[in-house]
Amino acid sequence: MPDTALLEGFPTPSDTPFVVEHIAEEFTSVCPKTGHPDFGVITVRFEPRAASASGICVELKSLKLYLQSFRNEGIYYEAVTNSIRDDLAAFMRPAWLCVKADWKGRGGIRSVIRANSGLVPESWLL
Amino acid sequence: MPDTALLEGFPTPSDTPFVVEHIAEEFTSVCPKTGHPDFGVITVRFEPRAASASGICVELKSLKLYLQSFRNEGIYYEAVTNSIRDDLAAFMRPAWLCVKADWKGRGGIRSVIRANSGLVPESWLL
Amino acid sequence: MPDTALLEGFPTPSDTPFVVEHIAEEFTSVCPKTGHPDFGVITVRFEPRAASASGICVELKSLKLYLQSFRNEGIYYEAVTNSIRDDLAAFMRPAWLCVKADWKGRGGIRSVIRANSGLVPESWLL
Amino acid sequence: MPDTALLEGFPTPSDTPFVVEHIAEEFTSVCPKTGHPDFGVITVRFEPRAASASGICVELKSLKLYLQSFRNEGIYYEAVTNSIRDDLAAFMRPAWLCVKADWKGRGGIRSVIRANSGLVPESWLL
Amino acid sequence: MPDTALLEGFPTPSDTPFVVEHIAEEFTSVCPKTGHPDFGVITVRFEPRAASASGICVELKSLKLYLQSFRNEGIYYEAVTNSIRDDLAAFMRPAWLCVKADWKGRGGIRSVIRANSGLVPESWLL
Amino acid sequence: MPDTALLEGFPTPSDTPFVVEHIAEEFTSVCPKTGHPDFGVITVRFEPRAASASGICVELKSLKLYLQSFRNEGIYYEAVTNSIRDDLAAFMRPAWLCVKADWKGRGGIRSVIRANSGLVPESWLL
Amino acid sequence: MPDTALLEGFPTPSDTPFVVEHIAEEFTSVCPKTGHPDFGVITVRFEPRAASASGICVELKSLKLYLQSFRNEGIYYEAVTNSIRDDLAAFMRPAWLCVKADWKGRGGIRSVIRANSGLVPESWLL
Amino acid sequence: MPDTALLEGFPTPSDTPFVVEHIAEEFTSVCPKTGHPDFGVITVRFEPRAASASGICVELKSLKLYLQSFRNEGIYYEAVTNSIRDDLAAFMRPAWLCVKADWKGRGGIRSVIRANSGLVPESWLL
Amino acid sequence: MPDTALLEGFPTPSDTPFVVEHIAEEFTSVCPKTGHPDFGVITVRFEPRAASASGICVELKSLKLYLQSFRNEGIYYEAVTNSIRDDLAAFMRPAWLCVKADWKGRGGIRSVIRANSGLVPESWLL
Amino acid sequence: MPDTALLEGFPTPSDTPFVVEHIAEEFTSVCPKTGHPDFGVITVRFEPRAASASGICVELKSLKLYLQSFRNEGIYYEAVTNSIRDDLAAFMRPAWLCVKADWKGRGGIRSVIRANSGLVPESWLL
Repeated sequence: MPDTALLEGFPTPSDTPFVVEHIAEEFTSVCPKTGHPDFGVITVRFEPRAASASGICVELKSLKLYLQSFRNEGIYYEAVTNSIRDDLAAFMRPAWLCVKADWKGRGGIRSVIRANSGLVPESWLL
Repeated sequence: MPDTALLEGFPTPSDTPFVVEHIAEEFTSVCPKTGHPDFGVITVRFEPRAASASGICVELKSLKLYLQSFRNEGIYYEAVTNSIRDDLAAFMRPAWLCVKADWKGRGGIRSVIRANSGLVPESWLL
Repeated sequence: MPDTALLEGFPTPSDTPFVVEHIAEEFTSVCPKTGHPDFGVITVRFEPRAASASGICVELKSLKLYLQSFRNEGIYYEAVTNSIRDDLAAFMRPAWLCVKADWKGRGGIRSVIRANSGLVPESWLL
Repeated sequence: MPDTALLEGFPTPSDTPFVVEHIAEEFTSVCPKTGHPDFGVITVRFEPRAASASGICVELKSLKLYLQSFRNEGIYYEAVTNSIRDDLAAFMRPAWLCVKADWKGRGGIRSVIRANSGLVPESWLL
Repeated sequence: MPDTALLEGFPTPSDTPFVVEHIAEEFTSVCPKTGHPDFGVITVRFEPRAASASGICVELKSLKLYLQSFRNEGIYYEAVTNSIRDDLAAFMRPAWLCVKADWKGRGGIRSVIRANSGLVPESWLL
Repeated sequence: MPDTALLEGFPTPSDTPFVVEHIAEEFTSVCPKTGHPDFGVITVRFEPRAASASGICVELKSLKLYLQSFRNEGIYYEAVTNSIRDDLAAFMRPAWLCVKADWKGRGGIRSVIRANSGLVPESWLL
Repeated sequence: MPDTALLEGFPTPSDTPFVVEHIAEEFTSVCPKTGHPDFGVITVRFEPRAASASGICVELKSLKLYLQSFRNEGIYYEAVTNSIRDDLAAFMRPAWLCVKADWKGRGGIRSVIRANSGLVPESWLL
Repeated sequence: MPDTALLEGFPTPSDTPFVVEHIAEEFTSVCPKTGHPDFGVITVRFEPRAASASGICVELKSLKLYLQSFRNEGIYYEAVTNSIRDDLAAFMRPAWLCVKADWKGRGGIRSVIRANSGLVPESWLL
Repeated sequence: MPDTALLEGFPTPSDTPFVVEHIAEEFTSVCPKTGHPDFGVITVRFEPRAASASGICVELKSLKLYLQSFRNEGIYYEAVTNSIRDDLAAFMRPAWLCVKADWKGRGGIRSVIRANSGLVPESWLL
Repeated sequence: MPDTALLEGFPTPSDTPFVVEHIAEEFTSVCPKTGHPDFGVITVRFEPRAASASGICVELKSLKLYLQSFRNEGIYYEAVTNSIRDDLAAFMRPAWLCVKADWKGRGGIRSVIRANSGLVPESWLL
């Protein structure tokens, strides 16, 4: 089950804004309808809250473990994307955050889901 | 340990603005969490402070040595990017400066961090 | 646990030799050392035993389910490749069979394992 | 049902050998197990029997209609390939004939089936 | 109607063997069954008969006009290829000659026809 | 210092021959002449000794740690390649083994070193 | 008019065989039939006669001037290729020599002419 | 003037044969006829003489300095290639050695020169 | 002769605006000056008039026949493009329409003609 | 000598604006300083004057002959570009016209010259 307790952070190292992007190319979960595995690429992009506002950045290995916790979860594409957006937004309270999930084909159809949190500057939209 | 004392400069050769870009394709540091090496590509782009304002440009070999000083440093991706941004901004006091760090994959996740100093014209953003 | 009971077959539809190739691009298992998931592409190529020799071909959906049964198995790359080779060779008793496993990177290292059964004609080697 | 009565031919226009290749990029049939449509590319390559031996070449539009007759047929990949090989070999009695069927992915697995009739010169193998 | 009277030649300029290749990318004729235009690329490759044996080479503009004479001709792919092979072989009596016709798709099927005259060295086969 | 004590193995999982290939894209060592870091890609390919002959395969994580032990070693390209060949051949006693080291440019010159152990079948040469 | 007097040479610098290749990408002459310019790429490859056998190599600038002397010459593709082959073979008396002329399209037809002198090793054929 | 005294070597690190390849992408010399600079890529590939036969490998930085010593030398392409072949063969006395020089265009003509020393195995020819 | 009587339409199926694009890759007509055939790719893009305004869409097979009616017509590139634009605009009275004709080379010159009808939104321009 | 008398036109076939682009890939002239040939690609783009304003379009074959008239003209890159712009603007009096000349390298330098006539809309600039 997706487990937000796995997420760890470290203090944002600066008050000057910067932008972080993590691309997880080996995401897998399970289709709640058929029980078959789904595979996709998850991209997360965010501007962390500033150091002086007690901002934190998600630590990479913990992010990997958090994403791996979806491995045997029966969950729709749309719900995966929204969960990641909500969990990371709640954990880091970033200035803004975007999530894009790019799914491999199932039955000849491939899908892309995008979800944002906060006011994402247009040039940073995924 | 990242060593700003390694940085050397030479006077900006002109008062007319110009833009410099250095791309270091062989950057490596160490993950503070796992102790394993990280590898990435660091791009630095800046407009030097003008000659008449005592502007300086970072000397290329000194930049190489400065970047090599991260080799055995345990440091997060985000902190690497901010350190380079802050160290070069402090050393050169340029009109503006951008840093992009493009990290090779770790555990199936690759990352890109971008940090700017000063007001970067939109068409020069990395 | 890899489950050969999942494999189903149907009679080879002809006595004239022909060659079948299945490429499974979404294989995943678990590293027995670190517990982290591994991802790879499995290619299986074979010439089925002839119809008159009671030859069978593996049915595609059952092959998918068999490959999915590795999903939560802690097993080395080399053992995955040999298991698939041995299980399919035992199940179909084909004229010959090749397996190639092409693994995504782990810690900056990616791997390819190849294993054959029977006398594979040189032009058909994977 | 695949209907060989749809096949029409015209006399081979020459006694000097030549080689014909037809690539049908829009083939579709139905999976006999799941009832879902399958999609693939069928390539047929042959040397027609000579004019003086009453050779015939399959007419292109009739080949299209013959291939379309598989549209609602529940049939395995392997059987499709063998049927086309057998039907065209019986209809044209060519010097030799190769069939390759290249199937789009199903459940993350894509497949290629190859079948020949007669002694195909090595440089003409599909 | 394909008109061999359009073909013109000039004496082979040498007794030392050489190889000529003409690639006509804008060939068109008409399907004898449907009346619709067909489009393809015709490649002709040959070693001309030697100067001392009264060899001739086909002149390029005359070849163009000859190929254009198929424009409104209702003729099968296979017959186009054989006609060009036979007409050029009869006109030039070359050491050897290959013709390849590469047809654009019709009804989702594209075709390639190859025909040779004389003993074509293997490395020169189209 | 390159440390063969880091290497771990597991028993070859089969008596039927198979081939393993590991590609380490993030290798780094230090030039013994200039003290500057070198970067390259190391490819290792081998056929393990059979299970019944007490064959072992190098475990992937231990291979990573072994390769990382060159990180601060001053050593020539040629010696790196020969060391890896010799250390892995001694550790696994494989049927055969190839090593290729593909070095990034230094002073405008890039280098490739290849070294083998045992009788490598021609089609497996790196 | 093609002018072999423009060709200059210098003594082959060695008795050990070596191979020279010149690729002239801006060749132009005139069609003798239409008076329009033709454009092509001329490749010349040869092994010079050895120094001890008074071998010479064609000097590059003189080769350029010789090729430019075709600029306003009305001459067929085939004759251009044979002239260059014959002129360079007579001038250098090389161990062997190949010429390939790759002509841009005329009237929708592009052409390639190849001519050799002496016994060209198969791996060096153009 | 090309200066072989710049070449330095180190003992071949093994008796087991291996192959070294250096690709110098920034070579420049001067045309002896026009005085203009020439630019090219020099590739050197060799199997060093064995350690037990007092074999040596050329050290990379010294190779760079040796190649730089051609910078203001007026010398033909062919002589550059033969000089490098002869100098390196004399310095290292390798089992075999190949040199390829790939020159950028001059007056619309680009050139490639290849020269070997010793009996180069066919699969290693440049 | 281009024959607008061949055009057939069907009622626009909606009042909500949508955009249609047809790409005809096998267009051919005849040069009015030389009598030689011309070949090109015709792209037509339009927003049909709304259903409630009695809008119609051109039927695809009729469009093919209409374009084929240019086959033996002697007509300039520019006039072809304008005719298609005018004929389709008159037939469909669309909200807007663009035509692009991309002609294969003639005498070393290739041409592109673009013509619009109505106010084409900038992002839809061909 | 560039000969504007070679230019021929035909009446613009419409009052509705359209845009014509001709790309001449085989342009050649002569360097006035060295006497050596220059090669380049000339692109001409224009909106013809409307039919009702007695607009004309340059006829393609006449444009070819006009461009060929530069063949033996000693003229600088910059003057070629300006001549074509001026001659075509004077001949057609178009709404606007752009010329781009893209020259192949000479002495390691390649050049691009652009010249316009009239008010060229920004999206049409070459």
